[in-house]
Amino acid sequence: MGYTESSWRMLTRTSTQSLTEQLAERFSERIRNRLLAPGARLPSVRECAKQQGVSPHTVVAAYDQLLAQGLVEARRQRGFFVRDAVSPQSGLGATTTAGHVAVQAPVHPVAADASALIRGMFHRPSDKPQPGMGVFPPDWLESTFMPAAVRRVTNTKALQEFSLQYGEPAGYGGLRRSLSAKLASINVPAGPEQIVTTVGATHALDIVSRTLLRPGDPVMVEEPGWALEFARLEALGMRILPVPRRADGPDLDVMARYCSAGDGHKPKLFVSVSVLHNPTGYSLTPGSAHRVLQLANQHDFHIVEDDTYSHLAPEHATRLSALDGLQRTIYVSGFAKILAPNWRIGFLAASPALVGRLLETKLIATLTTPSLFERALAWCIDQGQLRRHAERIRLRLDGARGRTVKLALASGCKLASEPAGLFGWVDTGVDTDALTQRMLDEGYLIAPGSLFHARRPPGTLMRINFATAQDATFWKVFAKVRAKI
Amino acid sequence: MGYTESSWRMLTRTSTQSLTEQLAERFSERIRNRLLAPGARLPSVRECAKQQGVSPHTVVAAYDQLLAQGLVEARRQRGFFVRDAVSPQSGLGATTTAGHVAVQAPVHPVAADASALIRGMFHRPSDKPQPGMGVFPPDWLESTFMPAAVRRVTNTKALQEFSLQYGEPAGYGGLRRSLSAKLASINVPAGPEQIVTTVGATHALDIVSRTLLRPGDPVMVEEPGWALEFARLEALGMRILPVPRRADGPDLDVMARYCSAGDGHKPKLFVSVSVLHNPTGYSLTPGSAHRVLQLANQHDFHIVEDDTYSHLAPEHATRLSALDGLQRTIYVSGFAKILAPNWRIGFLAASPALVGRLLETKLIATLTTPSLFERALAWCIDQGQLRRHAERIRLRLDGARGRTVKLALASGCKLASEPAGLFGWVDTGVDTDALTQRMLDEGYLIAPGSLFHARRPPGTLMRINFATAQDATFWKVFAKVRAKI
Repeated sequence: MGYTESSWRMLTRTSTQSLTEQLAERFSERIRNRLLAPGARLPSVRECAKQQGVSPHTVVAAYDQLLAQGLVEARRQRGFFVRDAVSPQSGLGATTTAGHVAVQAPVHPVAADASALIRGMFHRPSDKPQPGMGVFPPDWLESTFMPAAVRRVTNTKALQEFSLQYGEPAGYGGLRRSLSAKLASINVPAGPEQIVTTVGATHALDIVSRTLLRPGDPVMVEEPGWALEFARLEALGMRILPVPRRADGPDLDVMARYCSAGDGHKPKLFVSVSVLHNPTGYSLTPGSAHRVLQLANQHDFHIVEDDTYSHLAPEHATRLSALDGLQRTIYVSGFAKILAPNWRIGFLAASPALVGRLLETKLIATLTTPSLFERALAWCIDQGQLRRHAERIRLRLDGARGRTVKLALASGCKLASEPAGLFGWVDTGVDTDALTQRMLDEGYLIAPGSLFHARRPPGTLMRINFATAQDATFWKVFAKVRAKI
Repeated sequence: MGYTESSWRMLTRTSTQSLTEQLAERFSERIRNRLLAPGARLPSVRECAKQQGVSPHTVVAAYDQLLAQGLVEARRQRGFFVRDAVSPQSGLGATTTAGHVAVQAPVHPVAADASALIRGMFHRPSDKPQPGMGVFPPDWLESTFMPAAVRRVTNTKALQEFSLQYGEPAGYGGLRRSLSAKLASINVPAGPEQIVTTVGATHALDIVSRTLLRPGDPVMVEEPGWALEFARLEALGMRILPVPRRADGPDLDVMARYCSAGDGHKPKLFVSVSVLHNPTGYSLTPGSAHRVLQLANQHDFHIVEDDTYSHLAPEHATRLSALDGLQRTIYVSGFAKILAPNWRIGFLAASPALVGRLLETKLIATLTTPSLFERALAWCIDQGQLRRHAERIRLRLDGARGRTVKLALASGCKLASEPAGLFGWVDTGVDTDALTQRMLDEGYLIAPGSLFHARRPPGTLMRINFATAQDATFWKVFAKVRAKI
């Protein structure tokens, strides 16, 4: 399906390649796909030999090949490390006299590392179910109404009509009307003119940061939280203020301390996944929501509420945007988790005073967005198809969650939070960065806890996708690998 | 087609609205659609009364209505001015104690103004042909192969297959292979792995700026040039160094002077529309290209070559990326001008050393891009349909250009550059900002020269679209209005 298949199979003596070549290729592929990030240390020769069941001599020869390819560097007494992507041998600067473009440090070293990890998440190491993935498996999302919706909007006349001009800057008006009605049902008041469609929720969050923030601005972000948010804010040069996420909401004492900083150091924005928080599954309580908004009023910051998991949430879930009526809050959501990840439809809703500025940021970043899928989605919403589809998926997910939790507990894991929504936040009891590398050898991608922190400290937590982790074979391999760490 | 229709009709006494109401509504609509930008001065009472054929009393009453609606403000002895979008009455901050969020200056005042103007360009003031538009009229782009291509990729099985997962971060592999072959035909060497697809060329340019630049970095941009590029760089906090664009290429003396600045002030990037430059239609000569690249090597800056008009250019046109082999150059193009503006497909091609960092910026901004149109486009390219379509359009454009030039000359305009490509750069002999407002009254959108400058100085130039300006009625109205300025 377009994914790079890594060589996750066991090394084998009957292969046409030598064991050394096979091992070198395994590492080189992982480095190229950023599943081993720049700066990461390769396992020691002894360790690697034991893991792969080969002689230390084979490992040394394989590491030498990687060295020759410029993929790793040896540091005296410390071992082998993955080199930075921009290396002096390749490309720009190689033949110039100045040459410092090539060898200088990347502009945003931290961001590059984090987004490298995210990029790695797009590589399926095998056809096995992938417990680290962030979306439902494709067969869960299959439906007959989705292709029907696309057929409706792709007859020749309709297609010519909307394809051959740029379209409305704010997005297809019909979809914005459907979204306005959908938001009303969760008590978020937003007319169609307060809504802007985007290339997925990611793009909406990007537009909000670019519009409201200047480089160096302090931004409060829940931790743990989704790696991409940290990476984006870092790339934009913002100062990230991590706010521990608790079961009932963000840690208000920590937020209050950040807010008590002197002028010029006060937070400008708070980024929150209030409902079915990624990765913990926590949902905000009404009391906590009220206090967050009080703090925002008192200290004059904006809040962007990322409601990506909206479709999987109970109807009564509390949203900041509903309490606040989109005064200080900007509401963001999308359809990658419930309909079609590749359609890349997200949207934002904001106050009339703010929406014009947000729309201008959309224009300078992408002009308009493609309206074919926006039209198809409007039909799916208006016909009630999406609502029924979401009900079916919620029911199926409830079953999967029960089975996965049982398997995780049986494999020696503990649950770090009450299971809810798509993701489980699981304590494995062992270092999950090491676990990630070893599970890749077995063809499984898992999501280590470090991925969900701004500074990526090692830890024993991992996020699992309840839909893709209800597979006994995975947990058998997991238990075997875990026992060796 | 989703555009707001402004009240371009003449004011009329038989209307159900009073003349005052009609006039107030005309201005208020123009302000809301940003065709009158924040800070713009309304015509004087006497001037407006004369233009609209009403009494000064009617104008005063209409301006008072706009004042009451908070859309304009009166400045003593100077007249009426359009207010900033973020006004203290509306939205955020209105009911808070602090409230300064609402009244503070926008973060990027200049950018907001420029992109406001661009946003205005998306509003068709009437159904008449619009000489200021940046794309071909829809009927020029109609084809049978385009809907056929979409049908091929939207059968239920194909649609499910690619819709239900995120897809390849760099974009659909099949399209990147087609683009690689297409680039080879213009001597730009780029393997599929050096190509990243984007949401239009605009998004590609945005990704390049975000990856290579830090706020405050000096960037050389051709002037005149497309307003969106200035607006984006300003919104990102860059320092714009305008480089006059000549018939043979950018002004090398000016570039050399910028480059001789001390460390920390040296340009980091040069943004160039080398072939069929917007708005002049100029194309770079081989000698000029060579000297630009020499300068880039000597002073160590990157070049992003925006080849948006590629499909309309003669085959032998000189590209910087071809001479340089994508060492210091990044190549950007898209398909809005030749196939379907709303499909939003663009791409960039860069050195192997740089492409990974550019891809990471794409990921943090939008994750992936929708692949339906990428698949349809790949088919159009591979079948040779796009090439034949482009040939037909070039031929048709040649005819339109001849007719339009004749009409422009007959209407008292002079051509500021040799006619080529889609756009004409025309000297009207009168102030084109004033002309723009008066032509809007007649239902025509034109593109004043000020739109193509970083600081938007008034002037007598305007850009015309050869395809949409070959209409005698437009030029008749134009001549009449021009005579009154």
